Amino acid sequence: MTALCRVLAALFLLLSPLLSYGEILLVQKQAFEIADFTTQSGKTISPVRVGWEAYGTLNADKSNAILITHFFSGTSHAAGKYQPEDAVVGYWDAIIGPGKAIDTNKFYVISVDTLVNANVFDPNVITTGPATINPATGKPWGLSFPVVTIADFVEVQRQLLDSLGIQKLHAVIGASMGSFQAIEWAVRYPERVERLIPVIGSAYLDAWAAVRLERWAYPIKQDPAWRDGNYYEHGQPRQGLTTAVAYITQDALYPTAFNQRYPAPASAAAPHQDIRAPFSAWQQLMTQAAERSKLQDANHILYLVRASQLYRAGMGDNWQQALQQVKAKTLFLPASGDQLLLPTMSQHSAAAMPQAAQVQYAEIPGDYGHLDGVFNIQAVSAKIAAFLN
Amino acid sequence: MTALCRVLAALFLLLSPLLSYGEILLVQKQAFEIADFTTQSGKTISPVRVGWEAYGTLNADKSNAILITHFFSGTSHAAGKYQPEDAVVGYWDAIIGPGKAIDTNKFYVISVDTLVNANVFDPNVITTGPATINPATGKPWGLSFPVVTIADFVEVQRQLLDSLGIQKLHAVIGASMGSFQAIEWAVRYPERVERLIPVIGSAYLDAWAAVRLERWAYPIKQDPAWRDGNYYEHGQPRQGLTTAVAYITQDALYPTAFNQRYPAPASAAAPHQDIRAPFSAWQQLMTQAAERSKLQDANHILYLVRASQLYRAGMGDNWQQALQQVKAKTLFLPASGDQLLLPTMSQHSAAAMPQAAQVQYAEIPGDYGHLDGVFNIQAVSAKIAAFLN
Repeated sequence: MTALCRVLAALFLLLSPLLSYGEILLVQKQAFEIADFTTQSGKTISPVRVGWEAYGTLNADKSNAILITHFFSGTSHAAGKYQPEDAVVGYWDAIIGPGKAIDTNKFYVISVDTLVNANVFDPNVITTGPATINPATGKPWGLSFPVVTIADFVEVQRQLLDSLGIQKLHAVIGASMGSFQAIEWAVRYPERVERLIPVIGSAYLDAWAAVRLERWAYPIKQDPAWRDGNYYEHGQPRQGLTTAVAYITQDALYPTAFNQRYPAPASAAAPHQDIRAPFSAWQQLMTQAAERSKLQDANHILYLVRASQLYRAGMGDNWQQALQQVKAKTLFLPASGDQLLLPTMSQHSAAAMPQAAQVQYAEIPGDYGHLDGVFNIQAVSAKIAAFLN
Repeated sequence: MTALCRVLAALFLLLSPLLSYGEILLVQKQAFEIADFTTQSGKTISPVRVGWEAYGTLNADKSNAILITHFFSGTSHAAGKYQPEDAVVGYWDAIIGPGKAIDTNKFYVISVDTLVNANVFDPNVITTGPATINPATGKPWGLSFPVVTIADFVEVQRQLLDSLGIQKLHAVIGASMGSFQAIEWAVRYPERVERLIPVIGSAYLDAWAAVRLERWAYPIKQDPAWRDGNYYEHGQPRQGLTTAVAYITQDALYPTAFNQRYPAPASAAAPHQDIRAPFSAWQQLMTQAAERSKLQDANHILYLVRASQLYRAGMGDNWQQALQQVKAKTLFLPASGDQLLLPTMSQHSAAAMPQAAQVQYAEIPGDYGHLDGVFNIQAVSAKIAAFLN
């Protein structure tokens, strides 16, 4: 009996780290409000409300905070579940949690919904944008909502951290549009950011990527149901919004993963007989996009496109010069197969960083292209863990 | 004097091959008509008329013909000029001509406008498609024009070659959509094709690329001025057609070349102040696309998209099996930076070729991506020359 107990105890000790991986990290959405927020372009939004969530515990001297900044179609739900029965976990659950690369036993990990978040009708998202009721008029802001920038997203986060008394960030980590915010943090607040990890990211958006993003906006603007942004009484411009989401999906996926998900145009008779007949891959893509876009707002997509298009580190005329402000130790993690923000963009950004940034660079492998920065992030979890410790 | 003459003569001999490069190859457009053409789907087009041109001289036993099949936005104008004062030469003039890789001192090089050619209003293009007057009705075919396929393009070319008494082709060479035709030639007429060079090509179109192409068609179909294809009395759906051409332009260019041509979104005030304000790169792209699309027809773009989407070698259920018919010695030449028809598509196609094809493979370097197959073809001219000889 004693021997058996000893064996069981040893087994338990051996398995306990694994058990912690299996634990469900339960998280709660919280709201942060700014009564009057002034945008980079000098306009006022009253009020700004955004959602945020945190994993782990803030230590006594508030020195263990890591900020996660989210991507274009993302939300602040970076890890864990709201309820044990939730079907899915937060998007970077593979690397955020107890014993994981971003170890919530050590770090207080915090994540904030951006302004103009795409998923405004998701009950777990709190954001302010064109779909929000403007208290001054009692109606949705629509296109009277000011153009907002990556710098505005950062300023909202900064005010939240100030309110929590967090002065230093152990790290800022973000994927894609989240990398813009992360880099902007390190440029604007070099004394507050100790480490920086731009994942599938860049310190600037080039003409090629800006045009790619404009192609997401185009079907919305061309949809008569968009009504120049004043559709809230009539319902979303469904066709345009669905098409935008379909294009975002394709642009974020390398062909290998895309082709596994969608079949090649079949030998079906219809597309051979009628030029108007759609083919199956297109239909499936659009059907899934329609489903995914149900919690999204068309104007919010337009505002996210614009915020991304206008991004350059420092938001001035010379992003390379702006990067010279950075004091954070930096790890660039592009995805090898990325066809949206190409690894060369990370390389050019890395090349412009100052000596102080001690830049490291590694590529994320995989079949997903841009989305390897989300779906295959565990491939670089050891690199992230080593960099943070 | 005699010594000077000898030096001059030696210099002349030395320079004469260079002089032949500087020669202007003057070419003439010719027309070929088929009274009743039956499409792959069993419909009849009466008549089919297409343009063609040739460079070099057909030898006595008609054994020195090389067929060039053109790409999506291309025409049969592969080399030379129509008039000495023409501003530009044919698209592959760098490799077709006297003393060049495809040496017109040795070969009779022939090129044919496809059915539904995009540039139907170019006075140097002869094609049959939706914009053509259907003699049976006295009106443009519009969408009553049957869906045509890569196999139909090949059959038109085959009937032209039959009429010229050309039974064997020394080679079939084509870029992009031209590679589909070239491969289809080698599959359907293995005894007639001795050599095959698919440039930036593939033996099949996958779901990813088919959706990419559908995105070219979409702005046309969404333009109210398209009128379900019946716009000929009212004028082209300009906005949709221009947008399609802009998208084609971007998808065919690697970001490096694109960014050299179009500036990054500037710090201009307008896009920061108004979500509807366009940025300069987009405006420039659209302005140039509007110019380029002036000689094009919107319906023809839709038909070319469909023909490309439906392509698989042999046009049946199993393109890999169809490739087993090929007897031509084959050289695949994808472009390293191609983000439209990726080098992996050439690799998969090459891997499915039979032993008899003695497949060779080399990549075209450059900054243009897909269009390196056109703009940078001289980078592989030695490979092409060696392969043909």
